[in-house]
Amino acid sequence: MTPGSGFRLRELIDRFGGTLIGNPEVVVSRVASLATASAGDISFLSHRKYRSQLRATAASAVLVDAEGALETELPRIVSDDPYLYFAKVSQLLNPSARANPGIHPGAVVGPDSEIPASASIGPGCYVGSGVRIGEGAVLGPHCVLGDNTRIGDLTQLFASVTIYAGCTIGRRCIIHSGAVIGSDGFGLAREKERWTKIPQVGSVVIRDDVEIGANTTVDRGALDDTVLEDGVKLDNQIQIGHNVVIGAHSALAGCVGIAGSTRIGRRCTIGGAAIILGHLEIADDVHISAGTLITRSIQEAGSYAGIYPFDSKSDWARNAAHLRHLDSLVERIRSLEKKLAALERKK
Amino acid sequence: MTPGSGFRLRELIDRFGGTLIGNPEVVVSRVASLATASAGDISFLSHRKYRSQLRATAASAVLVDAEGALETELPRIVSDDPYLYFAKVSQLLNPSARANPGIHPGAVVGPDSEIPASASIGPGCYVGSGVRIGEGAVLGPHCVLGDNTRIGDLTQLFASVTIYAGCTIGRRCIIHSGAVIGSDGFGLAREKERWTKIPQVGSVVIRDDVEIGANTTVDRGALDDTVLEDGVKLDNQIQIGHNVVIGAHSALAGCVGIAGSTRIGRRCTIGGAAIILGHLEIADDVHISAGTLITRSIQEAGSYAGIYPFDSKSDWARNAAHLRHLDSLVERIRSLEKKLAALERKK
Amino acid sequence: MTPGSGFRLRELIDRFGGTLIGNPEVVVSRVASLATASAGDISFLSHRKYRSQLRATAASAVLVDAEGALETELPRIVSDDPYLYFAKVSQLLNPSARANPGIHPGAVVGPDSEIPASASIGPGCYVGSGVRIGEGAVLGPHCVLGDNTRIGDLTQLFASVTIYAGCTIGRRCIIHSGAVIGSDGFGLAREKERWTKIPQVGSVVIRDDVEIGANTTVDRGALDDTVLEDGVKLDNQIQIGHNVVIGAHSALAGCVGIAGSTRIGRRCTIGGAAIILGHLEIADDVHISAGTLITRSIQEAGSYAGIYPFDSKSDWARNAAHLRHLDSLVERIRSLEKKLAALERKK
Repeated sequence: MTPGSGFRLRELIDRFGGTLIGNPEVVVSRVASLATASAGDISFLSHRKYRSQLRATAASAVLVDAEGALETELPRIVSDDPYLYFAKVSQLLNPSARANPGIHPGAVVGPDSEIPASASIGPGCYVGSGVRIGEGAVLGPHCVLGDNTRIGDLTQLFASVTIYAGCTIGRRCIIHSGAVIGSDGFGLAREKERWTKIPQVGSVVIRDDVEIGANTTVDRGALDDTVLEDGVKLDNQIQIGHNVVIGAHSALAGCVGIAGSTRIGRRCTIGGAAIILGHLEIADDVHISAGTLITRSIQEAGSYAGIYPFDSKSDWARNAAHLRHLDSLVERIRSLEKKLAALERKK
Repeated sequence: MTPGSGFRLRELIDRFGGTLIGNPEVVVSRVASLATASAGDISFLSHRKYRSQLRATAASAVLVDAEGALETELPRIVSDDPYLYFAKVSQLLNPSARANPGIHPGAVVGPDSEIPASASIGPGCYVGSGVRIGEGAVLGPHCVLGDNTRIGDLTQLFASVTIYAGCTIGRRCIIHSGAVIGSDGFGLAREKERWTKIPQVGSVVIRDDVEIGANTTVDRGALDDTVLEDGVKLDNQIQIGHNVVIGAHSALAGCVGIAGSTRIGRRCTIGGAAIILGHLEIADDVHISAGTLITRSIQEAGSYAGIYPFDSKSDWARNAAHLRHLDSLVERIRSLEKKLAALERKK
Repeated sequence: MTPGSGFRLRELIDRFGGTLIGNPEVVVSRVASLATASAGDISFLSHRKYRSQLRATAASAVLVDAEGALETELPRIVSDDPYLYFAKVSQLLNPSARANPGIHPGAVVGPDSEIPASASIGPGCYVGSGVRIGEGAVLGPHCVLGDNTRIGDLTQLFASVTIYAGCTIGRRCIIHSGAVIGSDGFGLAREKERWTKIPQVGSVVIRDDVEIGANTTVDRGALDDTVLEDGVKLDNQIQIGHNVVIGAHSALAGCVGIAGSTRIGRRCTIGGAAIILGHLEIADDVHISAGTLITRSIQEAGSYAGIYPFDSKSDWARNAAHLRHLDSLVERIRSLEKKLAALERKK
């Protein structure tokens, strides 16, 4: 970024609020971590444990909360949530580079598709027939859009995203490379020893402001649709089964799996590699710890966990061996209680 | 589907059997869930808990078992397994759209490859040299077939499937987008602190009627082949290690991982995100619960599980803390038993 | 391989050391497992449990340790680590086929990119602008390199690898199909019920001799870089979060997930599907069992585990039910101990 292309601290205050302590004319043009910041950078303190880094940072300014404001002499903007403030400053300083509009000559576009002049279709893309792409939408290289897909305004697909026929993506979505949207759900009926495939005739509907991580998969519905509501955020390597509905503004970390027909509420968070079985209902504002397997519906908001605590392998082995005998252990306790009560009665 | 393109109930009976109650001339042209069905749709009751939906459905006909037959006045086909019946009706009403035969001009095909006129090679495909593709096989856009691969008759690859050199895919298989077949297994030998790669000179052999989900990976063998037998069904995001053999008609749910050289029997089912370690033997007809880690061979058919029960996070934390002291807890019980026995003897 | 293209056992000894027992003129041209080997093959005994196969093998020669040397009459090379020896022999007998140098006419290359004549750019590749590719590097079909990426000498990308802008890959790396390097980390700040995206302005730096498996994802850093040091080996379907640093020569098995900002030491091994939470520090030489969830930093080298032991489903259910009452169980033991002590005092 060329000098002068940054923002003065007073401009940040004008846009995002907060209280400025120090010189309002200081210019910042990049965000950086406390440890690596240099002149011209703005950094932030989001966690107490980085306080020593705050004192040592070479940043030109920092974002802090009221407590952090006391621990530095640097020009600083004080707010309730410095991490959120940092997100906004970083968006301002790092506007996403929009691809040039137009259809790359190496792309293949089927008949009856509508691509506005403001959209960008990268090299090697394949766009089927009957597709509608929104204003300012961007398809990176090598994307595949099946027939009759819909891509909303300003949505961005990175390279090598695959969307099956008939799926709908909302506005301002971001989909990362290798994501597959609309593949068949795992619908099988057993007939003697063979499996009979159940055609997956539903679709996928993704609403606005959804982000989908690299190599994440979202299956189409068996009969009805799989739905990701507004503002849902999916990390990488996630599997969403058929007919799942994920409520608005829920965020799922990497490697999570949601089995078919489960409904997740709004504003939920699901930790990495957690698994939620099929045909369950998870209420709004449920928070599930990483690595937890959810086996039944959750009606109440709150935090849930089911994690085997790790240990040195030898300690783990010694303790875990008893898990297979817990029931008999409980029986031994019950027997002790009876015998002891009998002894006590004899007194 | 245009009106009249459906099937009369008597035609369904003729094809698939079952007992018809109600007007045999009723025409159905689509499958739908009980809740969303409308006139012209056929739906099904597969689980007691949807009985109230059965009573309220607007479907023109329903598939039920003997018990369900008593709970509706609608035209209905009674069979032992309405879900399987539904699968067959859905296949009839939703024939898979076959791509137009021919090689898209944007595809690249290497020398000495045999592609019959009935096959369809989509835009952007790369087919190496010495490849043989079966009659009626379909490659969606952007597939990559390495040298000397074999694709059986009527097999369908969706967009962006990658198959490494030398792999063999059987007949009537379905492979979803992002799947990678034949990548190197994870074969390493340690030499001091460095790893030496072991060339993976085996291949992958996939037999007939296998389905492979989106972004699933199947590694080639180290020396011998990795094998998926007839009718194996793999969901999305599954990892199959080198030299694994999966017996016929086994079905693996999403996010499962099978480590190298393990052999899975026939007709097994493996729940989502279950992991099976390497060099194990799993018998026929074994059913493994989601999220279970299998650490040793299983000789007997049956159901197996190893799941940490989830709970509210605070309850989980209070209980789980004891897991690291189970061994000493057992010691305390043993000590109590001894002391109590001593007291009892004194009486 | 044509007859005569193999190696005499004395040539292997000259290159790799070890002690030869038997005819030094025996020629071997392929590696094979003990069970499937035939004339002209060399095999190896790496584990006691295959001793019976050693006695029955039709291989022309075998690689064994001192103990194994006593159990066969075949020409044999004795070394401390037959498996490592086998790796070296296999590399010798299976040199990786290098693609022809040159840029396929179907590839698209952006301006200001440097591609040496010795490099190979496959059909359908997209190479952005400002890219630098090393001598002898190979891009399989359909790879995408974002702007300003760097690919080191002799590095090989299999088909359909995607690398985002600004990422750096070292020398002699191998990256398998479907891998995505440099996608955005999962950086979000909450504002009321919505999520605000934090631009991911760091990059990915991959050093020399790294191997990355099929469909593995490595996110770019939020501010600083995500780093894989020399000789790191990643299996398939792994997720590496933003700002993770993995120390040299660590090896991660399939389906592992490492959450953001965690640092893994050198020479670690992480078993399949293990998950390491974010912002942790894992020491050098730590070995984590498959399926284990690591929730806090590990300062000491050693082996760690946290696995729920599987069982028949009915036995598991009976035992696991008590896990939710462990705390009250411990309370009952404590109460028993008190009462018993009271009784004993009364004597």
